Amino acid sequence: MSLESYMNQIGQQARAASRLLAKASTKQKNMALFAMADALESARPRLISENAKDMDNGRAKGLDSALLDRLLLDNKRIDSMIEGLKQVAALPDPIGEISDMVYLPSGIQRGQMRVPLGVIGIIYESRPNVTIDAASLCLKSGNATILRGGSEAFYSNQAIAEAVTSGVVAAGLPEHAVQVLNTTDRDAVGMLISMPEFVDVIVPRGGKSLIERISKDARVPVIKHLDGNCHVYVDDEADLEKAFAIAMNAKTRRYGVCNAMESLLVHSAVADKFLPKLIGALQEKGVSLVGCEQTRAIDSSVELATEEDWYTEYLAPKLSIKVLANMDKAISHINQYGSHHTDAIVSQNYSKTRAFLTEVDSSSVMVNASTSFADGFEYGFGAEIGISTDKIHARGPVGLLGLTSQKYIVLGDGHTRDN
Amino acid sequence: MSLESYMNQIGQQARAASRLLAKASTKQKNMALFAMADALESARPRLISENAKDMDNGRAKGLDSALLDRLLLDNKRIDSMIEGLKQVAALPDPIGEISDMVYLPSGIQRGQMRVPLGVIGIIYESRPNVTIDAASLCLKSGNATILRGGSEAFYSNQAIAEAVTSGVVAAGLPEHAVQVLNTTDRDAVGMLISMPEFVDVIVPRGGKSLIERISKDARVPVIKHLDGNCHVYVDDEADLEKAFAIAMNAKTRRYGVCNAMESLLVHSAVADKFLPKLIGALQEKGVSLVGCEQTRAIDSSVELATEEDWYTEYLAPKLSIKVLANMDKAISHINQYGSHHTDAIVSQNYSKTRAFLTEVDSSSVMVNASTSFADGFEYGFGAEIGISTDKIHARGPVGLLGLTSQKYIVLGDGHTRDN
Repeated sequence: MSLESYMNQIGQQARAASRLLAKASTKQKNMALFAMADALESARPRLISENAKDMDNGRAKGLDSALLDRLLLDNKRIDSMIEGLKQVAALPDPIGEISDMVYLPSGIQRGQMRVPLGVIGIIYESRPNVTIDAASLCLKSGNATILRGGSEAFYSNQAIAEAVTSGVVAAGLPEHAVQVLNTTDRDAVGMLISMPEFVDVIVPRGGKSLIERISKDARVPVIKHLDGNCHVYVDDEADLEKAFAIAMNAKTRRYGVCNAMESLLVHSAVADKFLPKLIGALQEKGVSLVGCEQTRAIDSSVELATEEDWYTEYLAPKLSIKVLANMDKAISHINQYGSHHTDAIVSQNYSKTRAFLTEVDSSSVMVNASTSFADGFEYGFGAEIGISTDKIHARGPVGLLGLTSQKYIVLGDGHTRDN
Repeated sequence: MSLESYMNQIGQQARAASRLLAKASTKQKNMALFAMADALESARPRLISENAKDMDNGRAKGLDSALLDRLLLDNKRIDSMIEGLKQVAALPDPIGEISDMVYLPSGIQRGQMRVPLGVIGIIYESRPNVTIDAASLCLKSGNATILRGGSEAFYSNQAIAEAVTSGVVAAGLPEHAVQVLNTTDRDAVGMLISMPEFVDVIVPRGGKSLIERISKDARVPVIKHLDGNCHVYVDDEADLEKAFAIAMNAKTRRYGVCNAMESLLVHSAVADKFLPKLIGALQEKGVSLVGCEQTRAIDSSVELATEEDWYTEYLAPKLSIKVLANMDKAISHINQYGSHHTDAIVSQNYSKTRAFLTEVDSSSVMVNASTSFADGFEYGFGAEIGISTDKIHARGPVGLLGLTSQKYIVLGDGHTRDN
């Protein structure tokens, strides 16, 4: 079969499965999630032996240790995949929820019903656990899924796919509810993102270059996460103890995450008082610092930042620091150089916090809290498929709701429209 | 200035204006709408004389009478543009609304704030009144707008643009809040839809071919309306009087609208009883009919429908009729041949109406009501910028809310994340 026929078949099967999933009951979907967990449990030896093939191939290809670590499937990771399935089963089912049902002057009642998006394509790198994460969230939200993982995880993903499908079928749901592509041909990705007749939305998960390439070529809507160049602004009316705790947490909790602070903005009236202690504490943690001239006047061990630094998401123990004359300049800086991901103000001033919340154009805007909280679990969604830096559809951490849409429903009793 | 520099300048100005509009107060935005109305009132002679140039050019180019009618600006149409501005001013302002603010286990409060999308590009055909419709809805929702109207309405749109800008400036809002392109170069459209750095969303208004072309080429999200191949399904448990009224209203209220019924589906158990009277009434109104073999067995004056007919939005006094064995077949037919716009069931059976609402995959699904109700005004939105047949972001009639997004806001008091 040609690749094109294969992708066409996958698409048609997904579309047909999506019709059945859209009307599946919560009970059936949860049964499928538990059956998937059981199937993973039974498949442990096979999962580990298939993963060993990927690991061997990866080592032979010379993958670095970070990539090999992401690729690894051991018993602990299988445990957490199984646990994840149970957690998703425990989440409330958003599908079918009816809201805003009101009587209108014509006599009809109009409201909205939450429905699945239909078919979701997920493109991700060589992390086998994403296969289960993505499949479980899409299934719970009543969507059919087409998964395309990184080629380095090919054998692992095929083994996971078998377990997933056996669980889905055991619960009486359609066999093609979750399909993992069984080709490593790169052209398959290009086809997957240009089948609007079969695929309703693409969620790419991975590095910025992968996501940019997919967004550029896609003929289907993309829910995407680009970079997280997050800021904390410390106001002249900040409680400096809170500011210290928040800045340290936002920068040093974890370095490689998208909600880490990458740039610190400090009001000039408190820079002398605030920065020396913070700079010392950050340097003690091994964070390398670049800053504006005013920052360097306070501590000359800070390197001079370039224009490029203000745009940069380091994803590393590195921070840029800028001293500014007032909050308006901080807001302008964030809206210009930031990535509209997550930005925070530390201030005790009521009017300023109110203005900051309104004027900063980011998917999460925070007052007196660490940017680290920008996360589906911390926001109470129970799980997340990613964080969207788009403004259309889902913005910010995307949980089950981001994988749904709302249609209008109208109830009448023989009503017709007059004019 | 080259076209590219010009479009770049327009984009930068729009982005800068959008920052100011995002924080404009409701009072200021309403003042601007009233000032725009005053400016249109004062500009009446100029609007009419500039429109006369377009009308002369249109006649010389041989535009047909329907196009010339759409192009015409007379005092009555100016009245209704002015009235439209006042209606938009009277709508509640969605911007800044905070919802779902909850305390989470970590101690932070998390909610969502409604915000403008940013910059909206509107591409439309030669109907000058759309300039005011679109500009007013975008302004009220805090967005900057770039408008590109049909070239036949060039002089009319420029004159309207002057009035709009004078109103905007009189209210202290940014001069570039609403920009009407002053070029008829077709390449400007291509540039407008590929500037994601300056334009957040494109709303094309016009025929299907325009919209398909724009969707295909856009590098920016598109809120689009394709066709409205709407169905009414008359169940064997329908109240046939209600079914008759609904079918007549859905088909004959207006023929050229997207929410008109284009295909009637009838349960075989009531076809003999229901169809003869309906066919007679429709033919009396001049509606030409095509149908399946079973329909033709009931009335041989109905022409045989082709496979193509079931896919077709006639936008004309024409209807396709199909007799089916049960509701499930009707739902499958609608989901396969329909355009996911608006579909209705007529039935007194509780379980069937409940299943129809859930299983039909359309932007509006109705029970015992005419498809004609699928409309922003009828749904109580006060105005609509169009009807979306997409599933992502806005689906169905798009009012002010469809021109907004929601960002997360987090309030803490020095909160940091533990793990």
